Amino acid sequence: MTSKSADIKDLSPIARPRSVAIIGASNNEFSVSGRPLKYLRREFKGGIYPVNPRYEEIQGLKCYPSIKDVPEAVDTALIAVSIDRLFAILEECAEKEVKSCIIVTSGFAEVSDETGAVYQKQLKDFIERTGMLVCGPNCIGMVNLPLKAITTFSPIFENHSFAEGNVALVSQSGALGHAMVTIASEAGIGFNFIISSGNEAGLTTEDYLEFLVQDPETEMILGYVEGFRDANRIYNIGSKARENSKPIIILKVGKSQVGQKAAMSHTAALTGSSAIYNTVFRQTGIIEAQDIDELVDYAVGFRSKKYPKGSGLAIVTASGGAGILMADKAEEYGLSVPELKPETRSQLEEIIPAFGSSMNPVDVTGQILNDTTMFKRCINILLKDPEIHMVVVMLSTATGSLAEQMANDIADVADSTDKPVMVIWSSGARFGDNGKQILAERKVPCYQVPSKACRVLAAMKRYQDFLDSKHKEPLINDQPIDLNLVLEILEQAPQTIGEYTAKRVLKQYGISVTKEEIAKNAEEAVSIARKIGGPVCLKIESPDILHKSEAKAIRLNLKSDDEIISAFNEIMNNANNYNSNAWINGVLVQEMITGGQEVIIGINNDPQFGPVILFGLGGIFVEILKDVSRRVLPLTKEGAYEMVKEIKAYPLLVGARGREKMDINAIVDTLFKVGQLAGDFKDNIAELDINPLLVLPTGQGVKVVDSIIIKKTK
Amino acid sequence: MTSKSADIKDLSPIARPRSVAIIGASNNEFSVSGRPLKYLRREFKGGIYPVNPRYEEIQGLKCYPSIKDVPEAVDTALIAVSIDRLFAILEECAEKEVKSCIIVTSGFAEVSDETGAVYQKQLKDFIERTGMLVCGPNCIGMVNLPLKAITTFSPIFENHSFAEGNVALVSQSGALGHAMVTIASEAGIGFNFIISSGNEAGLTTEDYLEFLVQDPETEMILGYVEGFRDANRIYNIGSKARENSKPIIILKVGKSQVGQKAAMSHTAALTGSSAIYNTVFRQTGIIEAQDIDELVDYAVGFRSKKYPKGSGLAIVTASGGAGILMADKAEEYGLSVPELKPETRSQLEEIIPAFGSSMNPVDVTGQILNDTTMFKRCINILLKDPEIHMVVVMLSTATGSLAEQMANDIADVADSTDKPVMVIWSSGARFGDNGKQILAERKVPCYQVPSKACRVLAAMKRYQDFLDSKHKEPLINDQPIDLNLVLEILEQAPQTIGEYTAKRVLKQYGISVTKEEIAKNAEEAVSIARKIGGPVCLKIESPDILHKSEAKAIRLNLKSDDEIISAFNEIMNNANNYNSNAWINGVLVQEMITGGQEVIIGINNDPQFGPVILFGLGGIFVEILKDVSRRVLPLTKEGAYEMVKEIKAYPLLVGARGREKMDINAIVDTLFKVGQLAGDFKDNIAELDINPLLVLPTGQGVKVVDSIIIKKTK
Repeated sequence: MTSKSADIKDLSPIARPRSVAIIGASNNEFSVSGRPLKYLRREFKGGIYPVNPRYEEIQGLKCYPSIKDVPEAVDTALIAVSIDRLFAILEECAEKEVKSCIIVTSGFAEVSDETGAVYQKQLKDFIERTGMLVCGPNCIGMVNLPLKAITTFSPIFENHSFAEGNVALVSQSGALGHAMVTIASEAGIGFNFIISSGNEAGLTTEDYLEFLVQDPETEMILGYVEGFRDANRIYNIGSKARENSKPIIILKVGKSQVGQKAAMSHTAALTGSSAIYNTVFRQTGIIEAQDIDELVDYAVGFRSKKYPKGSGLAIVTASGGAGILMADKAEEYGLSVPELKPETRSQLEEIIPAFGSSMNPVDVTGQILNDTTMFKRCINILLKDPEIHMVVVMLSTATGSLAEQMANDIADVADSTDKPVMVIWSSGARFGDNGKQILAERKVPCYQVPSKACRVLAAMKRYQDFLDSKHKEPLINDQPIDLNLVLEILEQAPQTIGEYTAKRVLKQYGISVTKEEIAKNAEEAVSIARKIGGPVCLKIESPDILHKSEAKAIRLNLKSDDEIISAFNEIMNNANNYNSNAWINGVLVQEMITGGQEVIIGINNDPQFGPVILFGLGGIFVEILKDVSRRVLPLTKEGAYEMVKEIKAYPLLVGARGREKMDINAIVDTLFKVGQLAGDFKDNIAELDINPLLVLPTGQGVKVVDSIIIKKTK
Repeated sequence: MTSKSADIKDLSPIARPRSVAIIGASNNEFSVSGRPLKYLRREFKGGIYPVNPRYEEIQGLKCYPSIKDVPEAVDTALIAVSIDRLFAILEECAEKEVKSCIIVTSGFAEVSDETGAVYQKQLKDFIERTGMLVCGPNCIGMVNLPLKAITTFSPIFENHSFAEGNVALVSQSGALGHAMVTIASEAGIGFNFIISSGNEAGLTTEDYLEFLVQDPETEMILGYVEGFRDANRIYNIGSKARENSKPIIILKVGKSQVGQKAAMSHTAALTGSSAIYNTVFRQTGIIEAQDIDELVDYAVGFRSKKYPKGSGLAIVTASGGAGILMADKAEEYGLSVPELKPETRSQLEEIIPAFGSSMNPVDVTGQILNDTTMFKRCINILLKDPEIHMVVVMLSTATGSLAEQMANDIADVADSTDKPVMVIWSSGARFGDNGKQILAERKVPCYQVPSKACRVLAAMKRYQDFLDSKHKEPLINDQPIDLNLVLEILEQAPQTIGEYTAKRVLKQYGISVTKEEIAKNAEEAVSIARKIGGPVCLKIESPDILHKSEAKAIRLNLKSDDEIISAFNEIMNNANNYNSNAWINGVLVQEMITGGQEVIIGINNDPQFGPVILFGLGGIFVEILKDVSRRVLPLTKEGAYEMVKEIKAYPLLVGARGREKMDINAIVDTLFKVGQLAGDFKDNIAELDINPLLVLPTGQGVKVVDSIIIKKTK
């Protein structure tokens, strides 16, 4: 993966325009081309230039017949003309050296007929030729809130204003993106950029993310994504975000079959498989939200920038019931509610009445009504307990000045610590609203129900773990690899590469395979068997017979020469009966390994993300129970180890039910080497299956028993 | 399960009081005893009698020195005195023949020291002796909203009023219950009863539910439950609710270990295992919510009383992005988004512009701004499609009169159909609020995000399936059962009943077990083996050796007399070496069955719910993968069949990966018979394990290979 940081586009002209032209501007203040003008006129300090040949003046501003008539330089032109007039206008913009365009015009790739695709192609060609920065088409515009550059026709700015902040949103759906802004802003999130990316004929979500991730004024990035176009860039975006400790939270849609189909017709983005996106987001530290409310919940939590450095949660309530519900949810989301140290408890007991609880969950009881400082004092004590990594206070019906006092108290404590302190305020919006307002302003995350807080805390814990994990260096293979030889083997092999040749490829990477040779006749089989030593198995070796069992062309556990000779003849006969036209290379004589545990390693070369590696136990575990783990390459040692531990059947590998412990290190090593092979030959290998890889007890390694490689069609 | 309908307590005096006394009434309008008086004075039409020997008048009302001085009959007395004065007051109430008491006094079972338990016992004794209806202690009161009988000190009534309705809430947490009311009422839910049940020394959650489920003025029941005291009654409550089509929605907490511990100390209710509660709720049609917001979401959906009669969902949006997200969530929650019939599509195409979509999800595009009737017309067309069982409209940033028009249009269509029509309105609370208000008033369920709507629709679908399912008659066992003989076997057996005797018990219920007999010596073993025919296995039969493999006291697949004789001697020797003090009944000679699939059937006699039956595949499937299904007795045929189909490994039983299809009917039959045995002897059997039950291919039945029964300690 080469860094593309040198190629990052400078989006300043479109992101921070000093002047904006509205081409096709309208006097109708509620129309697509009237609204942006109205919004800009409110407070934008830069130049505003309506363009429309039919008017001298629009909304009180001088109007120009053509963009070329605008006397000043134009950073951004919003174009809201019909598609048949668009390209002439664009050429004028290019002549005028307008630096960027926001095209709201629709009728491109989002329509199902051919015209759309033709227009999309024409636009792409224009962009390539001129190098112009283009947002859209079919977008609803671009907003820089601190600059008051509200270059959009979104109705949300009609009657409402939104707090400025350091959160940026990139959305492939205009309407949904702006709807999210209305929800997030009520939760106290302030935005800088609100970007509707439309069809992405020019600038893509990846471009915006690359820009934002290195933009010093952006502290958090939210995204609504139907599909990425150049998914590989996510890695670099992820590492840059990690360097800058800048959380990226993404709602990825188009995961269901119907959703994918709808996404295709909507913005014509590739949607990719949901399992792979999960994997990629996890590997790059991107926080994935499952719905709009989750996206906002994460934003509210992550902007506090305080993440738990362990899983120990202390719960403080004034209601026993609230504590129980909260403890349930904590466990559900993988947080722990540890017992408090005796010294912590005895300090709490000085504050809490006897009918309360100094155990975790801590219940200060209704006494809080008489002494609102109880929360503050209890939280301070809890924060000193080294096993407590985060504190949640659960309130219910507190209102009025009491609510305000509590909110300020809690915010004071939250400000004084590096551990996250959150509030769950379970009441209707009309209740305790002053207190809730104070928490939002003071950036103390506050949620209505326990699940939301626990989900966010769990995600913050995972994010902290991600930030803490050692810088992920790929493993180094000490086996010198003859890449030319491997390439030669691959090129000479048929499209579907059978066991014998596949193993030759694997061996080049130092992957342990069964001892085996091809015998052309029964005598050769016997002499190979002697060389191997111990019992052997015989299998037909033919590119035309892949289902060896079905062809009855496999025999196991052969010990004597006689057995081997008769097996050889039988296999050749059966193979001939099964497919008399099959090309037969001979019969594979293979060492017979017993015991151990069968596992599967697979590679699937995804069109968007490249090789994806898969691990699972053999047979029903993969096929029926779908108990597998996945990673996108490059695979790190930690990643490979996590892959093994992640499957539900992992206990079977480490001695559950009186079994022997299997050689986990050898699996990890094999996963890494298979990943290396798949990465080196990603242009050649479409699929690779090792099924089974036999894992032997600790220290005894693994052996590839069977494998198949399918080459990429060029 | 005998019906207890005859025993249902008449809660009218406490639920619909004609007069209320406040004992320990206060002039402080914000205190525990001042607030109820203030709230009652507002609008309650019945008699209100403050009782306090220290005042002549309280809050402008005549005050009585003692309850005995009140001139009229008193339906309910709210008692807010300290615990040391409580019992004298209660005796006075009894003398005065006060019909019910609401005790807000705390210091009972909820405190951890012994005094609490003593007081709780004393209160229970009083209640038993007098038969008085008692709510509490340690509750926050009881509200009948239509009667304005706000007999509570809850702060939520200070500055807010709540809409009346037909929804009742029973909550074991006062604060959390009232917090839920504030949230639910903002979502448009109107309440009749709001019951804080406190410690339940007298009236229990079960009592309230029994009352509400037959109360004609209650249409839906919400519950916050930490634990049931008499869980068996849930069945009758469930069937009554089913008869009356009255949804019961319960948030059951205390599922985590920490939560359970906290629940014990909170209201001292038994919390029960979360897996069993899941099972019970499912079997009784109770809708289980996982958090406060879910409870409210379900309430909003279910009060429409229109449930989907299939899983086909049509999605209507004006934003492509919204449709994709919605389709994803639908799939996630098990709903289908079917393709529309050609005639449906062609009708839609007359309305929708070419750049929209007449496929499901239907996208009417921004054109909706020019013609708001599009939604209405599209939904009407979709409702006629027989494969569409429900319609969801997803809106985002619509505001103002447009929003109102859309809301009224959608409500009109919703009113005209039996299929559920819902709205997802993804925008901040400040946006489109008039429209949202209209939907709430017209009882059209409306949610902010797709997951919520899909979760509710999926629950409504399950509820409709529950209502539609045939009345669940237990299976009938055609085997005549000699209950006395079974009892005799059980009584004569030791606490832990080993294989041979356990199988004798199972056989009485017509459950198929392996052919076997006990041999006292090697010759007997040989002659038994001949009688059985085919290969046999030999196992030690001793109540003192349960781990036969560990003792090396088991030998499989013995064919010749010699093999049997030597195995017999070896087993006796090994058993003696393993435990020389063991009582040896002999060696079990058992038919050897090969092939088939091992499954497990278990019984666990839960202290609250009685026998719970468990099913899973053998070995790692149960122990490592926890792939099991459970039912509480009595087990119906449908229930048994569902149990088998529910496990993830089910495909392995019905021919996955080229296996033979196993005899599912025989498993179902065995599950039923084991359930029957466990029910008949629920006072005798604590646990029962059949491990393994060998399932043979279809038509060949099953065989119990090994089993153990653990008797209940008396």
